[in-house]
Formats: sequence, structure tokens, C-alpha cells
Amino acid sequence: MIIVLKPNPAPGVVEHVLERIHALGLTPHLSQGVSRTIIGVIGDEDKLQVQPLQAIAGVEKVVPILRPFKLASREFHPEPSVVDIKGIKIGGGHLAVIAGPCAIEGEELLFEVARRVKRAGANILRGGAFKPRTSPYSFQGMGKEGLQLLRAAGDELGMPVVTEVMDPRQVEVVERYADILQIGARNMQNFDLLKECGRTRHPVLLKRGLSATVKDLLMSAEYVMSEGNWQVILCERGIRTFEDSTRNTLDLSMVPNVQGQSHLPIIVDPSHATGRPELIPAMAKAAIAAGADGVHVEVHGCPEKALSDGPQALVPDQFDRLMDELRPLARLLGRTIDVCNAQTKEPAACAPAPC
Amino acid sequence: MIIVLKPNPAPGVVEHVLERIHALGLTPHLSQGVSRTIIGVIGDEDKLQVQPLQAIAGVEKVVPILRPFKLASREFHPEPSVVDIKGIKIGGGHLAVIAGPCAIEGEELLFEVARRVKRAGANILRGGAFKPRTSPYSFQGMGKEGLQLLRAAGDELGMPVVTEVMDPRQVEVVERYADILQIGARNMQNFDLLKECGRTRHPVLLKRGLSATVKDLLMSAEYVMSEGNWQVILCERGIRTFEDSTRNTLDLSMVPNVQGQSHLPIIVDPSHATGRPELIPAMAKAAIAAGADGVHVEVHGCPEKALSDGPQALVPDQFDRLMDELRPLARLLGRTIDVCNAQTKEPAACAPAPC
Amino acid sequence: MIIVLKPNPAPGVVEHVLERIHALGLTPHLSQGVSRTIIGVIGDEDKLQVQPLQAIAGVEKVVPILRPFKLASREFHPEPSVVDIKGIKIGGGHLAVIAGPCAIEGEELLFEVARRVKRAGANILRGGAFKPRTSPYSFQGMGKEGLQLLRAAGDELGMPVVTEVMDPRQVEVVERYADILQIGARNMQNFDLLKECGRTRHPVLLKRGLSATVKDLLMSAEYVMSEGNWQVILCERGIRTFEDSTRNTLDLSMVPNVQGQSHLPIIVDPSHATGRPELIPAMAKAAIAAGADGVHVEVHGCPEKALSDGPQALVPDQFDRLMDELRPLARLLGRTIDVCNAQTKEPAACAPAPC
Amino acid sequence: MIIVLKPNPAPGVVEHVLERIHALGLTPHLSQGVSRTIIGVIGDEDKLQVQPLQAIAGVEKVVPILRPFKLASREFHPEPSVVDIKGIKIGGGHLAVIAGPCAIEGEELLFEVARRVKRAGANILRGGAFKPRTSPYSFQGMGKEGLQLLRAAGDELGMPVVTEVMDPRQVEVVERYADILQIGARNMQNFDLLKECGRTRHPVLLKRGLSATVKDLLMSAEYVMSEGNWQVILCERGIRTFEDSTRNTLDLSMVPNVQGQSHLPIIVDPSHATGRPELIPAMAKAAIAAGADGVHVEVHGCPEKALSDGPQALVPDQFDRLMDELRPLARLLGRTIDVCNAQTKEPAACAPAPC
Repeated sequence: MIIVLKPNPAPGVVEHVLERIHALGLTPHLSQGVSRTIIGVIGDEDKLQVQPLQAIAGVEKVVPILRPFKLASREFHPEPSVVDIKGIKIGGGHLAVIAGPCAIEGEELLFEVARRVKRAGANILRGGAFKPRTSPYSFQGMGKEGLQLLRAAGDELGMPVVTEVMDPRQVEVVERYADILQIGARNMQNFDLLKECGRTRHPVLLKRGLSATVKDLLMSAEYVMSEGNWQVILCERGIRTFEDSTRNTLDLSMVPNVQGQSHLPIIVDPSHATGRPELIPAMAKAAIAAGADGVHVEVHGCPEKALSDGPQALVPDQFDRLMDELRPLARLLGRTIDVCNAQTKEPAACAPAPC
Repeated sequence: MIIVLKPNPAPGVVEHVLERIHALGLTPHLSQGVSRTIIGVIGDEDKLQVQPLQAIAGVEKVVPILRPFKLASREFHPEPSVVDIKGIKIGGGHLAVIAGPCAIEGEELLFEVARRVKRAGANILRGGAFKPRTSPYSFQGMGKEGLQLLRAAGDELGMPVVTEVMDPRQVEVVERYADILQIGARNMQNFDLLKECGRTRHPVLLKRGLSATVKDLLMSAEYVMSEGNWQVILCERGIRTFEDSTRNTLDLSMVPNVQGQSHLPIIVDPSHATGRPELIPAMAKAAIAAGADGVHVEVHGCPEKALSDGPQALVPDQFDRLMDELRPLARLLGRTIDVCNAQTKEPAACAPAPC
Repeated sequence: MIIVLKPNPAPGVVEHVLERIHALGLTPHLSQGVSRTIIGVIGDEDKLQVQPLQAIAGVEKVVPILRPFKLASREFHPEPSVVDIKGIKIGGGHLAVIAGPCAIEGEELLFEVARRVKRAGANILRGGAFKPRTSPYSFQGMGKEGLQLLRAAGDELGMPVVTEVMDPRQVEVVERYADILQIGARNMQNFDLLKECGRTRHPVLLKRGLSATVKDLLMSAEYVMSEGNWQVILCERGIRTFEDSTRNTLDLSMVPNVQGQSHLPIIVDPSHATGRPELIPAMAKAAIAAGADGVHVEVHGCPEKALSDGPQALVPDQFDRLMDELRPLARLLGRTIDVCNAQTKEPAACAPAPC
Repeated sequence: MIIVLKPNPAPGVVEHVLERIHALGLTPHLSQGVSRTIIGVIGDEDKLQVQPLQAIAGVEKVVPILRPFKLASREFHPEPSVVDIKGIKIGGGHLAVIAGPCAIEGEELLFEVARRVKRAGANILRGGAFKPRTSPYSFQGMGKEGLQLLRAAGDELGMPVVTEVMDPRQVEVVERYADILQIGARNMQNFDLLKECGRTRHPVLLKRGLSATVKDLLMSAEYVMSEGNWQVILCERGIRTFEDSTRNTLDLSMVPNVQGQSHLPIIVDPSHATGRPELIPAMAKAAIAAGADGVHVEVHGCPEKALSDGPQALVPDQFDRLMDELRPLARLLGRTIDVCNAQTKEPAACAPAPC
């Protein structure tokens, strides 16, 4: 930590700061120049972090040197972490392909999409039972009944399932039915929810908030990990910027950026990031080329009737084509897409007619 | 709602869209031009909002016309709402002056600040008992004990008190001790928390999220109101932008912007918005000049030892000077600052020595 | 400047950095801790700024300490600068009220608006002759003829005039007709234009770019000043953010923020910032309350026929009411609005009929 | 274009708007509903664009339907444009690999880098002679002498060369020496410069502004094209957002987004976008996977001594490795990297010692 004093500090300011540092059992290094005085403190920065030295009258700024997260950092765990969910690995060269409808709307729709995405090569099934909606008048999800359908679909197809948990009070029921707990972008700094998920032993899929920096995201992962749950999978899903022709702005550079600082696997959700189906395949490929540990894609049998986020869903045929492009790309880049082993009944051809 | 089709729509697309609209019991208006076809639907836009017509193949975009919120809108309630908390009014020309420490850290510190801000003219006391902190290793608040101290300070001084609630499970205990429930910026779209607060009969202070549009904020207010609790006070506290010399960017134009669309009172928090004490007085004055229904300012007896957000707190002497400037400004602009009536013991002089 | 090394630097890295610093004639201060090594250099930071020490392999980051601008800084010129244009002062307690149409469209329209804004209390007349338009197919301004009309209006009314210069080749003709050269937001980092304006002896009104930080703006002022022209007036006109219900987001906190770092006067343009006439008066008042040295407001006799930015213009009656509100506010805050002295012919009543 | 009226319009407003539309020779379609009235106009939207109908008192908003650019649009030119510079093609499956130092600093440095990047597979050489620098005290480029060096290097190696032009007055000299004129991000809306470049017959490399939307970028391309120069190559180089761990935020989704609307080739500059060499290779690969028509990478023989942007440059060895990764990726995706044919002298080994 470096403390920069304002020009011409009042008498006693330097001594006051030094005293505060010594009182913490740390050793300051004083550098006095013609125009500025700076005080470096190297050591247990945590002790200083809880001291708002910046609030001292003559202090101009305090520059932290060490990263504020520990358990999530590369320094702490130099090798990439691999999360293993019933044999499907994420990280360390293994790609997650998470696909399914935005919301679970009913048994038939869910199972049809599930069979199609599995056949195409997805290895984790997604679907929302509790839905965070901007409007109180929108469909809020099927709740527990949705969880049961998702579990049934996962069991039939031998696919691990992931679903969002929005409220600490839902953690208990969600962990009963799901293999992975998803924390949505709007809840990335819902700290009580982070802690509650940290107390389970289920992997957590943590989505980046719309205005969260990379550091914020890693601090939220630290919340989960500090409760003892180290199985955190990060997810980039676009940030909010001035550009209004896409739903959000996908920040792909955060993939190698995170990988340089953290051992946690990181996947990319081009569906929420772009909100436009015609951009999703290009962004899924770019994510893999950027080094992401997987993708998260929404697929719906009939987007124009979807109860949530229909306009951004791929139809199963589009998802088939995307997987046909992702597979050789993954192979070229030395990455593996684990395959779910259970037998799958052949899905009936997806008829556009009933849509 | 207006549906714009892509150029040269495939055969059947126009008919398909019209059919979907008729099926909802609505009447479409078709306008076919040389280069584009547009379909207007005027009527119960809600019925259409749940229909993702944008997902239909030949549709380029769907432009909503009506506002998605109702209870929060001016159309629904043309006069400004006034929230009355134990005789202190907010809105309709009455200004809230909410002041106090960021976190409740102990009895002595709290009572000293409370007496000082009351004497200076604040009419609502604030203090955090449950603290949303970016790091799991930071001080997380005193919890229930903090609530009890806040209540005691409010009772002694005759001031209504406001404190943050972070988790739906905390609502019960917070409403027992506090007069106003604050929902913080990071929880603005914690929909379960919004609903739970909507089920109480306590006024809710709803802070704008860091990346929330004005519309998003009003939709979150709608969540609270749709549960039956109409006493919502909005709060602008800065949004996240590229400018890094302030903690956030205070968006004051949202004050008249909200007032044009909604009847709800709206106050401004220059402390979190700027993060720099030297900018707070100017922004508090600007907020009142912009028409805000109050300000929310953090005050601490010794910021350099504060356990949370010390660097952005005013000291009591600075708050005194701010109030000396706000009073004539409010008077010029025809606004009233209600006064808490209970007798206040004279605070001892704030000695910088023990700080 | 502080150089932070990566953990466990390779042998020779520390020595290499120290050597580079010594070679510049500066003295480094080395602080070696358990987890990090930092090197402080206090002295002529300019010498270091041209050295990309951050590019050295073992260096993690370089933290500058001193401000990169000099002539624009408070340290260099502690008192606020006052720009005096033909007796109208800006800064040091004197408020500029700059008003007029976005574009000069013809003699009659210009003179009518000019008379109205002068009568209402504006003390500087604005109007665009060279117009930066997003589309090549939009009205691009009247050019030199427009300049002549503006000069004539200013002369008749005894008002100084300001107009935008977009191209270094236009500086010569614009300085012949105008009293103040305006550099628009899109040209804030058009460095050749900045230099060319810096070579004139006309005051320069420098508008903040849509994505410019406060530091960027002051660096652009430094460009003008480093050519010998110290008469720079800064202007906040909104930055680009995710909020889409206003044209831009007015960042009023930058007013006291700039005033803490720089002696230059700073005014606010609520017209471009909001793009919505109903928000302009509130933001003009807020600007003055925040401490701005003036406002810049677009006024048009018939906005619905304006050739540029009509939807954001006030009509003269609205401007009258705004000035009636600004005057007592300025008085309360101890600020003066200088008055143009020339006799003004009484403007004919503005008839909405011909509009 | 759709005109939405405010609720309960005053008498005469509907007629007034209809009259204005008829006066332009267009036919309005009126739809009157219970809560809102909307007026659709399909036809020559350009005529309406110059009419600020939004400024009419009872109008709530005006929604444009057609794209504001024409020459740059897919509708106008359905096939992708291919720019051919001395046999090196960009677009239509041909990838540009533009590489070289940020600034031209001297003959030896330039030629060494040029030989290395050519040998690695770059097909266009870049280098700045006129440098836009945030600070007036930074190195401003070698000017004409730099242009001559760049030309000589390009001639010796048989590589087309690209360099930035900052000022309309420089266009003449730059087009004498360079094959491609680059317009930098800060000048993307320097409309006089756009026009001047549009009057040449040199291809123009147009970089996206830091706060420019995709539409803004295409409008700036339209400026160049409307002067008769259709050879425009777009370049994404990052936008300004709240994320501060990278220099800018690379918006890769704009690549397929642009390609859906425009026929112009689009390349990506990961150097300026990230500002961090360790992120550049991942982002270059992601750009190609996203469908970009090329990349633009800064390479310097000794970044720690570079006079401009050293910290973001790759060293030649890193660039070699990047090209080794890009080639198989391009091949897999069916893209071609054209090769410069002239004989190249083998570059001497890049000795780290003199650096």
C-alpha cells in the first residue's frame, strides 16, 4: 500500500500517518521529494485495508498494491481449477456447453429442447425455475415444479443441470434438485445469497454483474469461497455500456484477464450479452478462441412463444449448426468437450408448425 | 406497440403477425410502404409485452409505446406523493435531510453524530447495521445490536431512523426497529427483497443501482408498490461510468426526469455518488436546486477511524456549514425542511483529539 | 511516480529499473517487502513520463503521482482565472449566460432570438456557422455568411459572440468574426485544432468530449495554453453512459472537481447534456448551485422548424422564465451576471402563428 | 418514421403534425387508440429527418425506421466489399494482418521491426508519423521524415503501408507516401478530415471512436463515401467503459453486428483495445473467430524504450508466436492471409542486449 500526501502537508501529518502505520505493527518507508511525500508500506496489506487512511486530512490518495482477493487468486492456487460435475469437467482444457431454455415453461417444451441440445453436444442442461424479471407483471417462473421438471429431464438424459437461485431462502430447495447453483448478474453482489451458496457443496455458476469490474466479480467469488465452497465457475455475460444495438456489450478480454489472475474456470454467455440470435454463433466461437472454458447458450423450440427472453434464443437447428462449428474449433485449440453418457431417446423432428 | 418488419418480408409473415395480434383480442393497424411495413397496435400493451413478437423471423424490432410501470406513474397518480414519517414529510415541497454514519460502530460514536446532525438540522437519522461490503473480510455491520442502538438514538432525539435491509430474512427484524427500510444500490433488482419490503407497511428508500436506467429504477419501485406498499422514496446515488476521479457519476438530470414520469419523491445521496467529501456540499446544493426532495449525507465524528466508507464522510463541522448553506437555498426555492421536535441534549464539542 | 514490481522478480530486474531511473538523473527509493518490491521516484516526473517503464518485463504497474497538466493547474495559478470579453467577465464570481440558436439559419431568425435572449439577460450570443453533424446529409451550416450575420447581431446588441470552429483551416476566418472560439465535444482531442486555437489571442470555449475524463479535458486545455493562449473556458455538456432517456448524462460533480484542480472557469451546457427542454431549467439552476461559472443554453424562435437540434431548444418565453429563476439564485450565492450595455431595440412579440 | 403523441393531445396537434407531413409530399397513417395516438409515415424518411417533428409541443417521441446511412449499407451493396491494396486484399475472406510500431522513431528501429513482422506473415506495415498524444509534452511524431522512412520500408519489403492523418492539411502529404490513410479514434467525428480523406482515392482505415456506437461509425464511413471514396475499412479498437483493468473494452460483437448491416470490411485492433500485451494474442484469435477481416497489432523491438504506447506493444518473438496460432485458425475458418511477394532480407536476430 502506498500513501501519497498532498503537497506541503501541515505539520504533524507525516508523523500522524507514520504513527498509525506503526500502531498496526507495520513498517513504513518514507520518501520525501521536492513536491510530494509518499509513504510505502509493504506487508500485511489486510491490516491497512480496514484503516481508512485516505480520510486523514493531508492524504491525497492511497494506492493498494496487493490484490484484495486471496482464495480466488493464482498466487494462492497456481494451477487452473477443474470443476467436475458427475463426470463433466469444466476448466483445465475441458469445455462446458450449457444449453437449454431461458425459463422452464412445461414438461413437453423442456424435454424436447433438452433432447435436442444433448444430441447436438451440450453437456449441461439449463433452465430457469425462479426468474428475475424487470417487471413484476412478467412470468416469474414455475418455481419448485420447474425444478422437478428440470431434474427429471437431467436424469432421463444423464445431463447435469443448472438453475438460478435468487433468494437465500431458495438455496435449500434448489440444491435438492440442481447440480449447479447459478447466481444471476443482478445478484452478483447479493452478499447474503453468496454466503448461503458458499455454505452448500454444490458448484456455483457466478455471473458477472452488469456494472461489475473483473475485480468485483473475483471479490464475489471470494465471498462464496470464504464460506468453504471452492467450486466456483465464473461467467461473462456482457456489461452495460452506451452501445444500444446489442443488449449488453460482451467483454471477451476479461477471459484471459481473469485467467491471468485467478485459477477459477470462466465461461461465456453470448445469449444475454448480445440479445440477438444472429450474433450468438460468432460470439460463441470467439469465446472459445479467447480461451473460455465453455459457453452458455439459450435454446427454445419456439422463441416467439417463449415466456422469457424469447428474442435472444436460438432454435434447435441453429444450435446444431453452432455445435458443428464449435467442435473443430475446440479440437484445433486442444480443448475437450466432455460427453454425457446416458442413452438419449431420439427427439422427434422439431416441427415449426405447432410453434 | 409498433412492430417493424424487415425489408421484403417472406410470404405469410405479415399475416402471421396480424393473426397473433388478433388472437390477443387487439386490433392491428397495418401501414405498408415502399421499403418497410409497420404494424401499430394501440390498446392493452401489457398483453403484448408477454408476447415476444420480436422473435418472429421477419420482425426487425418492436417499439413499445406505453410505459411499463403503472402504479409509479404520473398518469396513475398525477399529484406528487408525500411520505410522512412521524411528522417528517418527504415530497410535495418538504425536504428530507437524512444524515448519520455509514455504519453503526458503537453507542458513543452513534449518539454523538446523531446529536450533531440533529442540531444542524437533519430530520432523519441513518446508520447501517447490515453492511453490504465488496470484500468478505471487511466489517459486515453490528447486526441486531446496531439496530437497537439506532432505535435508541432515534427515540432519544425524536428522529425517524432509516437503515438498510439486505436479505428478505432480515425484513422482520429491521421493520421492528427502523422507520424506513433502505434497499441499497446493489439490491435494486433483488426482486425477492423488493417483494418482501412491499409486504410491510414501512416506507422504503430505494436506491438506484449502479447500472440501472431511470426506467429500471421505476420498475423496481413498481415491484414494491405492486405488493401494496405505496410509500416508496427513490434515491439517486450515482451511476457507474468511465470517469474515475469520482466514485460514481451523479446523474442529477434524473431528478426532473423522474418527476416528469412519476409521483414518487426522489432524494439525492452525494456521499456515495462522489466519494469525496470536498465535492459533497456543492452536489447537495445542486440536488436541491435541481428539485430533489431531499439529500442523504454521511457524517462521522472521526472518518479516519470509520469501519466503513470513512473517506467519503463529512465531519460534523462540515455538515453544520452545509446546512447553513442549504437552508437559505431551500427557502428561496419555496421548500420546507421539517424539524424534529423532541428536545435534544446539547452535544459535547467534538474533540479532534480522541479521533 | 511509483513502480510496482511483479511478485518474485527475476534476477536483474530491480537493478535494471534502478539503472534506468539513475540514467535520468533521478533518485529512486527502494522498498522491499515480503510479497512485493516497490520503487518510488520523487522529482521531475516529466522525465519519467516519457519512459514506458511499464513495458519492462518484471514491472506490474506504474502509478503516477503528479498531475500531468501544469499551466491549467491550481498549483501553477492558485487564484481562479477570470476571462474578460469586451467587459463581460467569466469566472471569479461572474457568470456567463451564453444563449442563442444551435445553428445560424438566416438573418431574421437570428436577430429575433438574439434580441430576446439579450432582453432576458443573456450576456453572450451563440450561433453555429460551421456545424458538426453526424450525417453528411444534414444541414452543415451557413459558413462565412453565418459568421457575418452573427457578428452583425453581436454588434447591434453589444454582445460578444461565440461560434464553433471545426477545422484548423477555419480558425483564421472565425477569429475575424467571433469573440470566442468554441471547440466542440467531438473535437476535444483534435490536437491540431487545439494548437491552432492556442496560437490565436481569442478566448477558447472548450467543450468536454463525450468520453473524456476530467483529466483528459484539462490535458486538452493544456494543449491550447502551451501555445501561449491562457484564456480557456471549460464546458461540461454531458458524457455518454448507458442511460438512454437523456441525450447524455450531465456530470455536474465535475464542476467542483475541476475547480479543485484548475484555475480555469467552467460553465455548463444543459441543452446538449439532456436533449430535453423540460429538463434544461432544472439543470441550469443545479449548475449554478454547484458553482459553475455560467450556463450555455440553446434558444430558438420555432424549434419545430430548426435546421439543427430543434428538439432540445428552449423557446424565448421559456428562456425568460429560466432567467427569472437564475437571477435570484445567483444573487443568493453571491454571483454576478454582467450585463451588455448597448441599447437594444425592443423585439417584436414572438408570434407562434408563423412558426 | 413513427410519431408518437403524448397522452390527450391538445386540440389541433394531430392536424398540425399531419399537415407538416403532407407538406413534404408524404402520406401519414393515423392510428388512434384509447391511450395513445401514433402516426406512421413510410416513404422517403430523409425528408422527415431534417424536420425536427419531435420539437412539436404534443409529440412524445419520433422513432426512425430506416437506417440513416445508405452507401455503407448492405441494402445498397449486398455483397461484402473487398479492398485491394497492391495485391493485398481485405474482406471477402481475405485477412489483413497490419503490424508495426506505434510511432516511427528512426530508420533502424522501423526497418528491423518491419522485416520481422513481414517474415512472421504480416501483410501491411503500420507506423505513426503524426501522433495524437493526450499530452502536449509527449513525442508528437517525426512528421514528414517519418512518412519517408515508412515509404522506404514498405518499398524495400514490398508491403503496403498505413499511417494516421490527423489534420485535413496533412492529407496531401500523407497520401503522397502512404497506401492507406488511417483516421484515428479521436478523429472519427472530425468531419472535415473525413471529407478530405473522402476526396482522395486512397483506402481509408477508419477507427471507431471511444464513445461511438456502431451506427455512429457507419455514419462516419458514410461521410467518406459520400465524397466518392468507397474504399473504407472499419476498425474496432475498444470503447470506453467503467472497466479499468484494460485500457478500453474490446467490443467484438460489433464485428458480426457491422457485417449484418454493412458491406465494408472490418478489422480489429487488440493492442489499443486492451493495452496489455498478455491479452493481445487471445483477442486477436477471438477477432478472427468472430469473423473479422483482419487484425492490427503493434510490435516494437524494445517496448521499454518506445516513444509512444510501449507498454502495449508485442516484441517480435511474441508476434511470431501469434502468427503461428493465427494461421491454422484462419485456415480452419476458410480465410486467406495474402502474402507480400517482394524478397525480404533476413532480419538480424533481435538482440535484447541493446534494448
